[in-house]
Amino acid sequence: MNRRRRLLGPNVSTFYEEPVHLVKGEGVWVWDADGRKYLDCYNNVPHVGHCHPHVVEAICRQAGTLNTHTRYLHETILDYIERLSATFGDPFSTMIMTCTGSEANDIALRMGEAVTGKRGVIATDHTYHGNTSAVAQLSRTNPPKTGDGSHIRHVPAPDSYRPLGGEAGAAHARAFAAAVEAAIQELEASGHGFSSLIICPFFANEGFPTLMEGFLAETEAVVRKAGGVIIADEVQPGFGRIGTHMWGHQKIGLTPDVITLGKPMANGHPVAGVVTTPDIMAAFRTSFRYFNTFGGNPVCAAAALATLEVVQDEGLMENARVVGDYAREGLTALAECHDVIGDIRGSGLFFGAELVLDRATKEPATAYATTIANAMRDRGVLLNVLGIHYNTLKIRPPLPFTKENANLLLDALDDALTTVPVAT
Amino acid sequence: MNRRRRLLGPNVSTFYEEPVHLVKGEGVWVWDADGRKYLDCYNNVPHVGHCHPHVVEAICRQAGTLNTHTRYLHETILDYIERLSATFGDPFSTMIMTCTGSEANDIALRMGEAVTGKRGVIATDHTYHGNTSAVAQLSRTNPPKTGDGSHIRHVPAPDSYRPLGGEAGAAHARAFAAAVEAAIQELEASGHGFSSLIICPFFANEGFPTLMEGFLAETEAVVRKAGGVIIADEVQPGFGRIGTHMWGHQKIGLTPDVITLGKPMANGHPVAGVVTTPDIMAAFRTSFRYFNTFGGNPVCAAAALATLEVVQDEGLMENARVVGDYAREGLTALAECHDVIGDIRGSGLFFGAELVLDRATKEPATAYATTIANAMRDRGVLLNVLGIHYNTLKIRPPLPFTKENANLLLDALDDALTTVPVAT
Repeated sequence: MNRRRRLLGPNVSTFYEEPVHLVKGEGVWVWDADGRKYLDCYNNVPHVGHCHPHVVEAICRQAGTLNTHTRYLHETILDYIERLSATFGDPFSTMIMTCTGSEANDIALRMGEAVTGKRGVIATDHTYHGNTSAVAQLSRTNPPKTGDGSHIRHVPAPDSYRPLGGEAGAAHARAFAAAVEAAIQELEASGHGFSSLIICPFFANEGFPTLMEGFLAETEAVVRKAGGVIIADEVQPGFGRIGTHMWGHQKIGLTPDVITLGKPMANGHPVAGVVTTPDIMAAFRTSFRYFNTFGGNPVCAAAALATLEVVQDEGLMENARVVGDYAREGLTALAECHDVIGDIRGSGLFFGAELVLDRATKEPATAYATTIANAMRDRGVLLNVLGIHYNTLKIRPPLPFTKENANLLLDALDDALTTVPVAT
Repeated sequence: MNRRRRLLGPNVSTFYEEPVHLVKGEGVWVWDADGRKYLDCYNNVPHVGHCHPHVVEAICRQAGTLNTHTRYLHETILDYIERLSATFGDPFSTMIMTCTGSEANDIALRMGEAVTGKRGVIATDHTYHGNTSAVAQLSRTNPPKTGDGSHIRHVPAPDSYRPLGGEAGAAHARAFAAAVEAAIQELEASGHGFSSLIICPFFANEGFPTLMEGFLAETEAVVRKAGGVIIADEVQPGFGRIGTHMWGHQKIGLTPDVITLGKPMANGHPVAGVVTTPDIMAAFRTSFRYFNTFGGNPVCAAAALATLEVVQDEGLMENARVVGDYAREGLTALAECHDVIGDIRGSGLFFGAELVLDRATKEPATAYATTIANAMRDRGVLLNVLGIHYNTLKIRPPLPFTKENANLLLDALDDALTTVPVAT
């Protein structure tokens, strides 16, 4: 840890009170330097399982054959974009490949600017879209002290457990749309003008609230009326994780203009991207001659293609749906014995439970949730905590997660909740 | 090409009138889809040679073992930073690993902001430092139509062939420092204040002028006096390419505050980084809790470490010096028969010749230079054109380039310059 601080600098976050020193991964399992095995219920980057042989083989084969950039012609990037864009359907036929989701969102914001000629952006007050100078300004939870974020407005994050205005369903949806509309008016009055609304359609960092299909319909109408662009950040819900749909915007019934992708896209290889319509792509590419040296290079494209092949050919979205449902049923059963479980949410293999000190007041059990995450680590199960009050257990395993794995998770959680008193 | 336009969008640049469709690379050689072999005199990304077995093996081994992120502990990133920082010496002991040089420069600008509390940046008028919203603003040659670049000031790029003020040497250096000083005053008067000067210490995109050691000494003093930060973008000259030194700033005798790295760092794997002093790192990390999901992950760190091992263990910097000198001697001999060669410049395996229509007037042979790059492609040698007037042949092969390879390049160039009339 000292060596790490010296070489990486201060404030580099680690997971858990006692950080895990991993040396090996396979499927849903990881091993630490002492040979201890952990069930990985948290890592969405190794989306199709740690070190999936099909992806490793694709990376090795291509890394040993050719790795240049897209100013030379190469087929794999085109094959990939065709196969990927088919999962979105018309009109999402065109793509820029980048290396990180941050780069993808940085481009998406500029697509909004190129289309509207304006700069104002709306995001939720509990989101995170990445780390470039421009994108980091969107975060209220990890705000940079540098730069200029005067063109950003925040709206309250949806919260199905404590809904805006006290009402779930349509009233909650209307309240969210009204907040977006007010932010648009503020931006137009400020001189920045309104360019785009950027949201994770699963509201992952906000604690993945349970929202009805159509929740964003009024919001969408408000943005359209103002001539703005909707950016759906699919970095967390995408690629089949949520089980019922390939993409978060499809589940909630939102039609975005720009879709950004990241973490799980190539199972850990640095690949991300921006998918959009031909018109928006043309507007962006006319406004800036973007080129990314590593983006979509032959190895990146091969890694992404292999990952998509595994998701589709091994039926991992369906597995996410089935095992996710099973695990949530298990959590519901646990809630009968553990009053601290206030709410169970999620879809597919992106789920969790909000821990509260009192089910009536819904007072968040924030410290306890962190204690439980550490207790689970001690029990050989890796998960983490997020949400507006940082009291929601976040469970997001690699997609080949089985019912047996879920049982192990549930047993460990039952034990942790039983053993560790809420007062700590 | 149609499929490419449809899937990637318009204005995606390719090299050469007839783009090259590469399928294989090995050492300094690449092959196209028709089986034709080309001598690669241009690609600095496959720094230690296309598909170098030591790097490929490191990538394959680690990709098959574990690939998570730096919120878990892992040794390789620490081993790498220790080995790399030794090449800079004190006080450059700390690093953030990113995926692209653009991300690295985006962080570097924020380090300048964090240290100075100001935002104004100075760059040359013919540079390019990357493609994020913030960094793209630095480019005058490929400027974005979006965003706000009001805090950027440009100074005329150094040009040893047509020096500022008409004088080479000390007068040229003074003129450059004076331009920087004027830009600082402008920024301070504008309300933005002066934060940092960002330069490639080899002025690669500017056409790699021949500059004396100490050329930037007065500029450095001017920046220090104003309390600013100097960012050395080593993406192009770094990692031994220039033969005499590992880094461009060491050759020109500049002491920067922040050093950014990119393209050649992991031989094509998406790896880049920012190296700085502990104080500046602490200022940045206190101002923003930066985290990069893929940056410095075990595979990225392994690829970077293997690349550095090859550079050092195979003596590639020394090879770059010896073969680069040999190739420049060959160009000098060619200049005796070809009046179009107006100036020969460079260091190590980053060199080229400026083509002019008239040696007295130095009128740039811009169109002819592009014609020659295409003629060389037809002769099986890949190089390109850059510089202030886009009339400089840019030759920047993988570092295992041999004298025999140089002979092939020189023979092809002799033939192209002989065969293709200057009038075209």
